[in-house]
Amino acid sequence: MKAIKTGNNQYLKELNKAIIMDLIRTSEGISRKALADKTGLSATATGTIVSSLLDDEYIQEKGLGKSSGGRKPVILELKPRSYFAFGFDIDSHCLYTIVMDITGDVIYKRKRENQNDFTPQQAIKTITKEYTKAVTKLKLSEDKILGVGVSVPGILDIVSKKIILAPNLGWSMVELLEPLKSALDIPVYLDNESMCSASCENWLGLCKDVEDFICINIESGIGSGLFLRGKAYRGISGSAGEVGHIPVNESGPVCKCGNVGCLETIASINGMVARANKSKKNNHDIGKTFNELLKNAREGDEECLRVLKEGAVSLGKAIAYLINTINPQKIVLGKRFPDYSELVIDVIRKTAKKYALTYPASQSEIIPSSFGEDSSALGAAIIPIRKLFGR
Amino acid sequence: MKAIKTGNNQYLKELNKAIIMDLIRTSEGISRKALADKTGLSATATGTIVSSLLDDEYIQEKGLGKSSGGRKPVILELKPRSYFAFGFDIDSHCLYTIVMDITGDVIYKRKRENQNDFTPQQAIKTITKEYTKAVTKLKLSEDKILGVGVSVPGILDIVSKKIILAPNLGWSMVELLEPLKSALDIPVYLDNESMCSASCENWLGLCKDVEDFICINIESGIGSGLFLRGKAYRGISGSAGEVGHIPVNESGPVCKCGNVGCLETIASINGMVARANKSKKNNHDIGKTFNELLKNAREGDEECLRVLKEGAVSLGKAIAYLINTINPQKIVLGKRFPDYSELVIDVIRKTAKKYALTYPASQSEIIPSSFGEDSSALGAAIIPIRKLFGR
Repeated sequence: MKAIKTGNNQYLKELNKAIIMDLIRTSEGISRKALADKTGLSATATGTIVSSLLDDEYIQEKGLGKSSGGRKPVILELKPRSYFAFGFDIDSHCLYTIVMDITGDVIYKRKRENQNDFTPQQAIKTITKEYTKAVTKLKLSEDKILGVGVSVPGILDIVSKKIILAPNLGWSMVELLEPLKSALDIPVYLDNESMCSASCENWLGLCKDVEDFICINIESGIGSGLFLRGKAYRGISGSAGEVGHIPVNESGPVCKCGNVGCLETIASINGMVARANKSKKNNHDIGKTFNELLKNAREGDEECLRVLKEGAVSLGKAIAYLINTINPQKIVLGKRFPDYSELVIDVIRKTAKKYALTYPASQSEIIPSSFGEDSSALGAAIIPIRKLFGR
Repeated sequence: MKAIKTGNNQYLKELNKAIIMDLIRTSEGISRKALADKTGLSATATGTIVSSLLDDEYIQEKGLGKSSGGRKPVILELKPRSYFAFGFDIDSHCLYTIVMDITGDVIYKRKRENQNDFTPQQAIKTITKEYTKAVTKLKLSEDKILGVGVSVPGILDIVSKKIILAPNLGWSMVELLEPLKSALDIPVYLDNESMCSASCENWLGLCKDVEDFICINIESGIGSGLFLRGKAYRGISGSAGEVGHIPVNESGPVCKCGNVGCLETIASINGMVARANKSKKNNHDIGKTFNELLKNAREGDEECLRVLKEGAVSLGKAIAYLINTINPQKIVLGKRFPDYSELVIDVIRKTAKKYALTYPASQSEIIPSSFGEDSSALGAAIIPIRKLFGR
């Protein structure tokens, strides 16, 4: 990315700093000269920015690179364990906590179970407690904490970030941002859970240089985060990506949204467990949890396998529609999906190929996420880190 | 939009010129001082650009504006009939020709019927003939012609613009751009037909300041063009917006794509005509054209009305998925749709509301286009004009 000559413009100075930081991050080792060449800034201007980043300990000198004639150049890299960000993911029955350094390394990870769904007040209280606990345990200096990102399973107002609806938590019109800012006294950012997962794929996962992708989260419900032209796409009011209610089976179950045969009634974890428990065709006790369903399926229980495959066919149909409409390069299936990907991914790919148009289907790859259930907490921690790199 | 200080950078000079031009266009009358204020350029730099635009006759002085203390300022506007662009739309049985000036005024319009589908060679020949005819008739000087845009009903390669597939023309892997450039000896641009219509809505129609919208064309088939974050969205390989194959009825007709109950089998013009002709329930002769179908429906023929309403319900369902997935501000229904909008728009709105999630549905407006069948030719003519304004 080309930098811009700044004069005394503070905004442009910060922008150039971010551009330099981002080049150091993405190159995984780069010299001052290469930075100047790539940004178009003078050697002096580049040197000044690099010195200030070294002083502030965002970056460090890694060693000497290869010479292209003269002296061997000093290679710069991000400094691990220098600055940190927190990511929280509010799930219906638990809170995930992640602490990440600016290189993307996770240095702390915790899952705290909750007996019931969090109320907003409980969520604020628990996040504050977990934050303090981690800061103390890791002996973090507050001036090294970039901020806190919070992932919420719901629709957020695009401007105010008020939570308009979070059905799995039973929340509507909830203000979480300001109370958290007051409680933590540090920059706080909220985002939708699926968007946090998509952001995690984009920053650390399988979609680092992918312009157009969709990250579909399979868990109690089904949601997705869209990255289009390399950036989070939210729609006009922040609710883009609600793919859980694509109808995929006209004779399917009634969904809580009021319609029939929505994707999430058939392909979500809750949907699959309900369908397995409803089936009386076999003598096995399928049990009430998804882990039991998976165990039975792996042991050859046909009813459990059938439920998983029906989920996969439905997901494949919905993906076909997304391929036709959005023409993405990748579709990443995340959250619980990697736990059972090997049982169903072929069915999903085959179904999507069958129902999508040939050309866009040939351009799209359907893959399981390399993260599991903590992708949203990871993505939440990435929000304050991204800002450092002007992303 | 802020301009950038240029020094001697030719690229930035052109950029600033385009920014000034675009401000003049969108303000519909603006003074030099207001231009300087809005761009952040000096009075001298602004004056130089304005003089050069006046010399080249892109703009003209309109008269005097209101004084804010001193002299009354001279108001600048785009100069009508100064520069022109051509738009062609290759349809299966006809070619639309549009000539537009830089203000967006259409000064020439022609629809040329063809007995059969165009072959690529026929298309090139016919476009060349129609171009020459219009240039001669309008006595256009070639240095005042900005370029030619061509709308094609198919999927174009995003880089080479080769036509990968145009099913209604029976074309696959067709090179049209280079032969047309050679034949016309002027800049030529190709784009997908639905995207041309969307671009027309964005430049001249109902979506001028709309960030996220979808323009769905109802004609022999069904396609759509997506504008997301204010810009054409094409997907990773140029085929985004293929909404004609969203499945909407599991017991519906078999589609030419091989699947069952695709939107366009039920809601396209060809689909509706086929369904009306297939129906034997009434004694009317429904006839073979969509115009006859509409006439009968308006005269109270229940079968014809039923076919239109089934189309509307299917369209409403597909729009519901689009609302959930993309969360657009507007959904514009174009091409043949305005001809019968009043008969079905309420059914479409009601169905979309029923099947979409409440919140995004409340943020989306479903409206008929204010253009008819020539929206793609208009959008094609806009391609060379857009470039003048850096858009």
